[in-house]
Amino acid sequence: MFALWESVIKLPQEIPQCEFDKRIRRVGQELESRELDALFAFSTESEPANVRYLSDYWPSFETAAVIVPVEGEPILVIGPESKTYAASRSKIASIYQILEFRETSEPEYPGVQLSSFEKIFDELSDDGVERLGIAGLNTLPASVYERLIEAMKGKEVVKADDILMKMRMIKTENELKLLREAYAITERAIERTLDSVKLGMTEIQITAEATYSMLSQGAESIAYPFWCISGPNTSQAISRPTHKKVRAGELIQLCIGARVGGYASSIGRPFVIGFIPPKLKQLMKTGLETEEQTIQIMKAGVEADSIAKNIARFVSNRGYREFLLYGPAHGTGLMECEPPFIETSSQFKLQTDIVFSVDTFLGDNSMGIRFEDGVRITESGVEELSSARRELISL
Amino acid sequence: MFALWESVIKLPQEIPQCEFDKRIRRVGQELESRELDALFAFSTESEPANVRYLSDYWPSFETAAVIVPVEGEPILVIGPESKTYAASRSKIASIYQILEFRETSEPEYPGVQLSSFEKIFDELSDDGVERLGIAGLNTLPASVYERLIEAMKGKEVVKADDILMKMRMIKTENELKLLREAYAITERAIERTLDSVKLGMTEIQITAEATYSMLSQGAESIAYPFWCISGPNTSQAISRPTHKKVRAGELIQLCIGARVGGYASSIGRPFVIGFIPPKLKQLMKTGLETEEQTIQIMKAGVEADSIAKNIARFVSNRGYREFLLYGPAHGTGLMECEPPFIETSSQFKLQTDIVFSVDTFLGDNSMGIRFEDGVRITESGVEELSSARRELISL
Repeated sequence: MFALWESVIKLPQEIPQCEFDKRIRRVGQELESRELDALFAFSTESEPANVRYLSDYWPSFETAAVIVPVEGEPILVIGPESKTYAASRSKIASIYQILEFRETSEPEYPGVQLSSFEKIFDELSDDGVERLGIAGLNTLPASVYERLIEAMKGKEVVKADDILMKMRMIKTENELKLLREAYAITERAIERTLDSVKLGMTEIQITAEATYSMLSQGAESIAYPFWCISGPNTSQAISRPTHKKVRAGELIQLCIGARVGGYASSIGRPFVIGFIPPKLKQLMKTGLETEEQTIQIMKAGVEADSIAKNIARFVSNRGYREFLLYGPAHGTGLMECEPPFIETSSQFKLQTDIVFSVDTFLGDNSMGIRFEDGVRITESGVEELSSARRELISL
Repeated sequence: MFALWESVIKLPQEIPQCEFDKRIRRVGQELESRELDALFAFSTESEPANVRYLSDYWPSFETAAVIVPVEGEPILVIGPESKTYAASRSKIASIYQILEFRETSEPEYPGVQLSSFEKIFDELSDDGVERLGIAGLNTLPASVYERLIEAMKGKEVVKADDILMKMRMIKTENELKLLREAYAITERAIERTLDSVKLGMTEIQITAEATYSMLSQGAESIAYPFWCISGPNTSQAISRPTHKKVRAGELIQLCIGARVGGYASSIGRPFVIGFIPPKLKQLMKTGLETEEQTIQIMKAGVEADSIAKNIARFVSNRGYREFLLYGPAHGTGLMECEPPFIETSSQFKLQTDIVFSVDTFLGDNSMGIRFEDGVRITESGVEELSSARRELISL
């Protein structure tokens, strides 16, 4: 029925079907070892990782879930308006539509035929679903969870995010290919955006240059709602760009990232137009050295907390202890920010093929800088996925 | 502490403080009439309407809520990394940070001081919160809802989305100003994007042109993850653009919208490069006439279901009954798609100053077209917020 799509849409950058099949089989094994009958993995427009990982489908407006039974075929569950969209993207053939996954504005669809949680669970397994694992309880809306519990008729429901988190943490060669491409596009976008910056442009206009560069180069989308911020706005660890115009001699922070085949990247660079005032230069220099230091000490086998403690000391020794909000690196992949996190409280060792975003943010209530780069952990250190313009930048 | 921001960031396009104060007072009155002690209004990055309406804050990565007590000052509750960002945007002065509103990847923040639901409820009211209304149960994650219920210690929690929905439905002059500007930017982006389309561009590259045009013109962001789709992809009612290249003689659908000061717009136009094949022309013409017919019959006082039934007949008479998925119009404002919905099952009369997105989507499994425009309901008909290129477009 949807065969026509295949011949028309050539997505050059995607995870192959066989790898999705492998992921589903591995989930089945994890379910079996935990005595779970099925995994229910939920996603939204802005939190698409679970469903994208299992089906390649990325919901928009509506929400979605993949249900993987311990034996048998997985199914993709979507909302009332996404049928042909989901069919064109999904690596899972069996697709059900339910009202609960409609837009949150709660439109009605008089006359439209839909399925239900009850019907889906009935068809999923001859023996019924006695124990269901859920991934995404921290994005699954309370009202939908209530309906799910009702449909489970008193059967057991347990949190099971760790099944997918564990699988997603170590990147495969196909995933690395997409991540490398995402970082390469972002590096070129950093160069082009810095080339295009002019005094008097607004922060939003600068992000427009970055967005245009990425989409023109073949990114599927931006990786997160990224920003350019300036002056006192730079104190913001999470931000959005404003209509403020950039000025000479003030701190300007660019944080941008492309998404390729579902995989996110992010590069952060602070810069100044013209002369860098000494106080800013000191902060930028400390940030740059901290970023280099983190990259220097990352290697397979190293304890994560030792890295975070090393960096906390490094920053403190330079007089910026109060500028630290979080640890020096976090995982990256289908989400720009995903586990594992390198914090002073971390309890794990770095492993080969984890991809980290080395994320040096130093800020107080008046200003802040971020250097951010991607690295893949190797036996001997790291493979740097980005390094363009990792320097003190004055335009 | 955050006074510096005020002098630096001049947001030219925003709802004034006095209108936010008025909204908070009105919520207070609604709470009183329902014997509720407070309203808890929740939002996420991709579903920001509740929190934006009450505080102008738009969360990113993390989530947020506004708590409005029946008497006393409202508070904004945010996540661990959003302090200076929220302070720079929020029209509510009192801001609390809690761990539950962190990113869904669940980073830890060793050593960072945060508040809690318990402390917030204790401080909110001397008499305690006995009955809490919630807006956003269909976006509030189940895991956060569980924590909220725990903090309420057995006190009553009731669904109260209708308080904000009722207020948001009729647009004020300040809101209309932003909506008019959003549609004006989108109209110009439609013109510029159509001018820039060339054979062989990918769908994604065409949306890049639209995005760049909007952000350059002063939009704060795009209004939703919009798309250009072509050929069989046009059957998708909700979609995302792909790397497919556009061809001569195939249907191409552009759906784009700018966001200004929080307010969303959307314009939909189908077009063809070169000669329009008769079958496509018939579908496009029917869509165009349906769009015009809907706009023609909208007026304050008219029953919504009579409009939906009129349009269902109109489309059926032209032989496209099976191409209808939903009714001819939906509300628009802080969300691109929000109540009220004009469906054959609707039970309300159109009122002056409701803004509708007139949204004609006609599609089957092989192709589809959408004409979409904004209108404000008036006593005598509508004020059209967009009309650019509402015609059969052949480039």
